[in-house]
Amino acid sequence: MTPFGILEDSIIELAQKAAIEALIDSYTIEFPIDYLIVGTQNPEEFTGQGHLSTLLADYVGVVPAGATRVETGPSSGSSAFESAVALVGAGMADLVLVIGVEKMSQVARNTASKILSRMLSYENEILYGATPTALAALMTRRYMHDFGLTRDELSLIPVKAHRNGAKNPLAQFQKEVSVEQVNNSTIIADPLRLYDCCATSDGAAAAVIASNKAVREYGLSDSVIKILGIGHGTDYLAVQHRTSLTSMNATRVAAKNAFRMAGVEPSNVDVCELHDAFSILELLNMEDIGLVEKGSAIEAVKNGSTDVSGAMPVNSSGGLKARGHPTGATGVAQVRDIVLQLRSNAPKGLQVADPIIGLTHNIGGFGNNMVVGIFSI
Amino acid sequence: MTPFGILEDSIIELAQKAAIEALIDSYTIEFPIDYLIVGTQNPEEFTGQGHLSTLLADYVGVVPAGATRVETGPSSGSSAFESAVALVGAGMADLVLVIGVEKMSQVARNTASKILSRMLSYENEILYGATPTALAALMTRRYMHDFGLTRDELSLIPVKAHRNGAKNPLAQFQKEVSVEQVNNSTIIADPLRLYDCCATSDGAAAAVIASNKAVREYGLSDSVIKILGIGHGTDYLAVQHRTSLTSMNATRVAAKNAFRMAGVEPSNVDVCELHDAFSILELLNMEDIGLVEKGSAIEAVKNGSTDVSGAMPVNSSGGLKARGHPTGATGVAQVRDIVLQLRSNAPKGLQVADPIIGLTHNIGGFGNNMVVGIFSI
Repeated sequence: MTPFGILEDSIIELAQKAAIEALIDSYTIEFPIDYLIVGTQNPEEFTGQGHLSTLLADYVGVVPAGATRVETGPSSGSSAFESAVALVGAGMADLVLVIGVEKMSQVARNTASKILSRMLSYENEILYGATPTALAALMTRRYMHDFGLTRDELSLIPVKAHRNGAKNPLAQFQKEVSVEQVNNSTIIADPLRLYDCCATSDGAAAAVIASNKAVREYGLSDSVIKILGIGHGTDYLAVQHRTSLTSMNATRVAAKNAFRMAGVEPSNVDVCELHDAFSILELLNMEDIGLVEKGSAIEAVKNGSTDVSGAMPVNSSGGLKARGHPTGATGVAQVRDIVLQLRSNAPKGLQVADPIIGLTHNIGGFGNNMVVGIFSI
Repeated sequence: MTPFGILEDSIIELAQKAAIEALIDSYTIEFPIDYLIVGTQNPEEFTGQGHLSTLLADYVGVVPAGATRVETGPSSGSSAFESAVALVGAGMADLVLVIGVEKMSQVARNTASKILSRMLSYENEILYGATPTALAALMTRRYMHDFGLTRDELSLIPVKAHRNGAKNPLAQFQKEVSVEQVNNSTIIADPLRLYDCCATSDGAAAAVIASNKAVREYGLSDSVIKILGIGHGTDYLAVQHRTSLTSMNATRVAAKNAFRMAGVEPSNVDVCELHDAFSILELLNMEDIGLVEKGSAIEAVKNGSTDVSGAMPVNSSGGLKARGHPTGATGVAQVRDIVLQLRSNAPKGLQVADPIIGLTHNIGGFGNNMVVGIFSI
């Protein structure tokens, strides 16, 4: 993956850098790539550049491979990964290159927010001024009411994210923050403050998915991480139509499907990357995936379980909050960070002790297009 | 599929109508849909509406199914179909709903052309004023030079398209045209005239892909058409970087892969739908797929082989020219028309005699993202 942040590179250069690194890292650069799958949310409006499937097939040198662009909002990278897994699983491909990329800083921040708000329901939300941040604030308030979560407790989540991000050389924000700094940062949508919300980012990440046959014939086994399961779920588009403000059913469905396919249980997960675009989401995700009991996620944060040195480290990369969130890139970056963990090759100070099973969780629309991946050494 | 043309319906209504019809026609409306795959080129810019995956999952009633939007320019529908086939092939889904949709008439025609031109190479083509039509004209001129194709011969292709379209109750143009009318129509890009170019359209088409298990357990076997193979290929983005102006390598690759997967030969094809966005493409496609020898496609048109009553009927639906070309919908509409043919259920006057093998061919960028599907009873 490239560094995440506000970058000089064009969307094409970002994608190229990540792709070439993935092909080299996976020892597949000399072998035929059957498909390229590109996950990207809205390059047309963020950059004026469309048709990234063919364009990148040409610019990363995989012509005449089939090339497809996949889009599910901010989980576009995970959905691209899922499509690639399906192609290999169906025997339609032996090597698939997946690129997740977004270049969000080319437009003004207000324009970027407007583009991102497209994921909401026009008639039920946008028309009344709702934004993703406002909806996250609503869910935070309800969670505080139902489970007694305090502002100081909520602040522990960005504090942990920044503590990890400070050690991740590719993270957008490589500095620690304190509970006081979070508590006193600008209010974005009450009760959410600046440090509760991920920033606008540019960046790309890439991965190569190989069939068992390709692994064997090309001698790739030394670098392989296994994909055990993948699951995907949706919910009603408008938050007001859903059954809960403190749980996301799309995550529950995605996780259930992924665990069933993988044949493992939530208790088997040793390390995970969860979609913490807003602080509250990290708690919801832990609970909806089944890593902790409903209402008890903050206890796991407080007692250190989710730290790098804890029993169930969450977002050792810094997460969306500190690593950054170039939307279409995030899902593939999560896979990349879990791969590094499972190879025991994470950056200094971020390596979890001997993980065997890793999990990724990416959110598409606001509470939709959840994709959960489960990986093992 | 909905009627194709300039329609009142919104993009959501179009998608809903096609989806509900597909669920009813396939007898799957009462069974759980595991995934929705939406093929659409650029709803954000054509209609202002994004995030169609989740939005349509909600609006067609398949929540909490996984939902993904796939985009490869004008072959987005075929690529969505391919992604759905992969999910079923990998055992990740038993029932997948595929919707191809585009609403192009909401913007001015010049804006639509600009949006469509995004599929070209900016630095090599757009910068110098190239458009898809101009590139098609260049290829037509070269083909005329190399193979002695005449204007009167070329006109036989839209004449056949309109003859078939006149009998297709869902076609955008349900009227016949003569060689003289084609020859005397407005020049768009010399030598291409108005009737050589497909029009701007709105429309949607949908299909349900089922696993063998679902067919068995849900008792669907009476309505099933088998998917034998699917292939996808790309070429260099800019036409000037390719090896030929009279052949598209992406089609050759896609067809080769599809025939290999299907275990059949071009000579086995009984009926096909080819991407005739411009008259010349029908000839190139027939040759590149291997249905006829290089340079001899026009002979097959002249001797009636490609007529509905001929030995190898091409575009019995009217093709992109007469049926219409709402870009993201076309690939799924092609599948739908081949399904009708293989079920011997085509509109009156368009049924081919007892077809066993059918083929679809869809073009994405200008000569890219070719997707070929092969089907049988």
